[in-house]
Amino acid sequence: MTKTNAGRFFEDYAVGDVITHAVPRTISGGERALYHALYPARTALYSSDAFAQNCGLTAAPMDDLIAFHTVFGKTVPDVSLNAIANLGYAEGRWLAPVWEGDTLTATSEVIGVKQNSNGKSGVVWVRTEGRNQNGIAVLSYVRWVMVRKRGDGAAPLTVIPELSKVVDPADLVIPTGLNFTEYDFALAGEPHRLGDYAVGEIIDHVDGVTIEEAEHMIATRLWQNTAKVHFDATNRPDGKRLMYGGHVISLARALSFNGLANAQMIVALNGGAHANPCFAGDTVRAWSEVLDVAETSVPGVGAIRLRLVATKGAAGALKGEDGKYLPDVLLDLDYWALMPV
Amino acid sequence: MTKTNAGRFFEDYAVGDVITHAVPRTISGGERALYHALYPARTALYSSDAFAQNCGLTAAPMDDLIAFHTVFGKTVPDVSLNAIANLGYAEGRWLAPVWEGDTLTATSEVIGVKQNSNGKSGVVWVRTEGRNQNGIAVLSYVRWVMVRKRGDGAAPLTVIPELSKVVDPADLVIPTGLNFTEYDFALAGEPHRLGDYAVGEIIDHVDGVTIEEAEHMIATRLWQNTAKVHFDATNRPDGKRLMYGGHVISLARALSFNGLANAQMIVALNGGAHANPCFAGDTVRAWSEVLDVAETSVPGVGAIRLRLVATKGAAGALKGEDGKYLPDVLLDLDYWALMPV
Amino acid sequence: MTKTNAGRFFEDYAVGDVITHAVPRTISGGERALYHALYPARTALYSSDAFAQNCGLTAAPMDDLIAFHTVFGKTVPDVSLNAIANLGYAEGRWLAPVWEGDTLTATSEVIGVKQNSNGKSGVVWVRTEGRNQNGIAVLSYVRWVMVRKRGDGAAPLTVIPELSKVVDPADLVIPTGLNFTEYDFALAGEPHRLGDYAVGEIIDHVDGVTIEEAEHMIATRLWQNTAKVHFDATNRPDGKRLMYGGHVISLARALSFNGLANAQMIVALNGGAHANPCFAGDTVRAWSEVLDVAETSVPGVGAIRLRLVATKGAAGALKGEDGKYLPDVLLDLDYWALMPV
Repeated sequence: MTKTNAGRFFEDYAVGDVITHAVPRTISGGERALYHALYPARTALYSSDAFAQNCGLTAAPMDDLIAFHTVFGKTVPDVSLNAIANLGYAEGRWLAPVWEGDTLTATSEVIGVKQNSNGKSGVVWVRTEGRNQNGIAVLSYVRWVMVRKRGDGAAPLTVIPELSKVVDPADLVIPTGLNFTEYDFALAGEPHRLGDYAVGEIIDHVDGVTIEEAEHMIATRLWQNTAKVHFDATNRPDGKRLMYGGHVISLARALSFNGLANAQMIVALNGGAHANPCFAGDTVRAWSEVLDVAETSVPGVGAIRLRLVATKGAAGALKGEDGKYLPDVLLDLDYWALMPV
Repeated sequence: MTKTNAGRFFEDYAVGDVITHAVPRTISGGERALYHALYPARTALYSSDAFAQNCGLTAAPMDDLIAFHTVFGKTVPDVSLNAIANLGYAEGRWLAPVWEGDTLTATSEVIGVKQNSNGKSGVVWVRTEGRNQNGIAVLSYVRWVMVRKRGDGAAPLTVIPELSKVVDPADLVIPTGLNFTEYDFALAGEPHRLGDYAVGEIIDHVDGVTIEEAEHMIATRLWQNTAKVHFDATNRPDGKRLMYGGHVISLARALSFNGLANAQMIVALNGGAHANPCFAGDTVRAWSEVLDVAETSVPGVGAIRLRLVATKGAAGALKGEDGKYLPDVLLDLDYWALMPV
Repeated sequence: MTKTNAGRFFEDYAVGDVITHAVPRTISGGERALYHALYPARTALYSSDAFAQNCGLTAAPMDDLIAFHTVFGKTVPDVSLNAIANLGYAEGRWLAPVWEGDTLTATSEVIGVKQNSNGKSGVVWVRTEGRNQNGIAVLSYVRWVMVRKRGDGAAPLTVIPELSKVVDPADLVIPTGLNFTEYDFALAGEPHRLGDYAVGEIIDHVDGVTIEEAEHMIATRLWQNTAKVHFDATNRPDGKRLMYGGHVISLARALSFNGLANAQMIVALNGGAHANPCFAGDTVRAWSEVLDVAETSVPGVGAIRLRLVATKGAAGALKGEDGKYLPDVLLDLDYWALMPV
């Protein structure tokens, strides 16, 4: 019975360790079709080879969050199998598009550890990098999780990494060839350019989606995410299956098409919190707040910084007077996307 | 909050307007695999490259209804977001096969408007055309819907288009190269040729399928159909999600394999009515009536005109003494398919 | 009403008959993506082109059980539509990998018949072979089922085929080019070689998966398996849909990754029993027993013979004192897989 992977505990992480995650994954049109069937994704650049070619790319790349979920899924057996909570993200950057036929692998470097005062758990920070079959990095991000301790040994030296609150727009990587010179707003679905958005503006994305158990499990397995809480109804006293937080991210991002159809590509993840758990039967809505706008290295290609909130409640409501997330709020995500100026 | 699409109202349609629908879509083997996983589709020409090549095609095209759903889905944000009812179809013709890798776009021309006597809604007729990345038309059909009025302005001039009750067999487009000279009835699944079917014959397709919420939502999202009634359980007082009518069309067509395995390709949609709404938990069965048979421009390739009925009840039963559809009947569809003579 | 297929009855099988099964099927990356979304499949050789190339193959083949399910599905309308029970498997061998784009057909030869003493049913043995578009056999296996009699005619001459209890390791077919010389255990997910496994060793695969109706129906349709008990909730008095036994096989095999990550390819099916029916809502776990180890014709490529048990209960428990399967046990499968020595 010792051949199975029991997952790592807090003691198993030392700053500087590099973990090679198992099971490389080749992505095909099948993964994209499933992505578009599981989420109401409609961003034209990821939906149409012809539209992407009109934007200077050779074909439609895989949706940005397909890259994220695939890389994230690889890390689960090594990083979050015994995690108590997924605490945050920072410094996420999409470094190259993922194309049909690409094979992704992932590694994580431990960049921080801090034992909790209860002596029973600790926080681990890792910087994860996804690479394609040619060794080219496609995605990099920092994630930190709270992990159980195995025993009652002494605490390791605390190392807390310094992390940027926001990815500097100068560090955003624009896919080679991308330009919006011939951008077709009618085919993209909305007329709004970057200049039409005001910092502070709130956009209610209107639509709601009620989630079924089969949907979030099919999605989570597609990313080879093995965390048992998502699949095993006997795992919690209440018989519920906890939804993979990434499912809520993709759902909210897809819903945000309605009002943000021209926010074509996510290029950076500044931060994020899974404010409350999501369960099958919940009806999820989304709203966005424009946090910033910026130029990029490519004329005509602008960047919009957005707060994306998934909620079971009303648009615009985020935290209570106590500064805590309202119980209806599921996700609070901070990202940069590319948009025609 | 003004950046989102609230959909068009009756006043927003004028005869002669041409609407370019957003979000072109590239179709891959992933969409086909999902189609075959969501519906019990078994028509050999769409299931096997080798079978299709034996019929003179270069490969298996995408299932006829994949083209229909993809084009239909594009029209939803512009045509039926505020629709009260989807009233009918006419003059539908499949004009060219859709191949793996094709990108589809859609446009609709408004060809009729008629305000209802209550002054609160009206009927809009559109002729929708789907084209591939080379600008070649792959599908054309007329649909009419009842749409809410925004205000209480004067009624527009009534224009009711003249529509054929049936597509003339001489107007059916046979895919280039298609022939049934070497047709393999054993691999197709049944021995029945066109000559074996009699006009008036009723075929009970026997099998039933109970539908789950996850299935119809996955299917409907795959076509990028955004109508909220299909996804949001909070949208109706009874907490039910209304099923996309096209889901019932595809389900019934796939069930009709049992008895119509050689009705290989749908080439025309003469008409159709979604007689009653369908909900998760319903067990759907199907029966067909042979309405007509015809020759086509290609010797050996015949056409069969079929009434396809999806029902929760018994085969053969369609309307009551009052001329109205029986409550169990979900769909009454009239189409032409190609079959070996 | 005579055009539909009512399925064969016991009288319709004569030893020596060869049945050509209908509806050939082309397999694409879409089928693989769905397989990986429906089961927690993580075997590296089937997940990654790069990993497979490192093992001497041209690309990642389709998962071994995709070939099995596709071929099995073709046989259902001819072999098991009127089956009372699926009794067993023997002499199953994977003869060549299935690649993206391959088209599979299937034939079955009747190799045994035996009427039951009640005179109302009988057992039929068939040897099924799957071939690709080049006529190359990819899979062969024997299955026997209990089938209803149509009438009360005399019993045919009893013929019971002699079947091997185990496929001889010398008969295992190693895919052309396969070698484990450069095998990457880190990317495969576990360090255990064939030499690390002891005959008699029990491995508890730990994880559990709760199954939804939508999942098993989507999977079963993907294989074009038409048996109505899987889809029609009105078919049984208790309103339950019986799960396709192959769904449990794939689920258990995928769960066995945890402890058997290097059992890369199934190459033989020695036997198997669907011990008890499985229904939506069941939480399925798996455990394995090492039955044997062997060399193959390729140095470095070993074979491990495993008993794979799917259960709703505890690992290690299989049969009661009466010699019958415990009520929690769903599947008892005996197979050979390839593993680095």
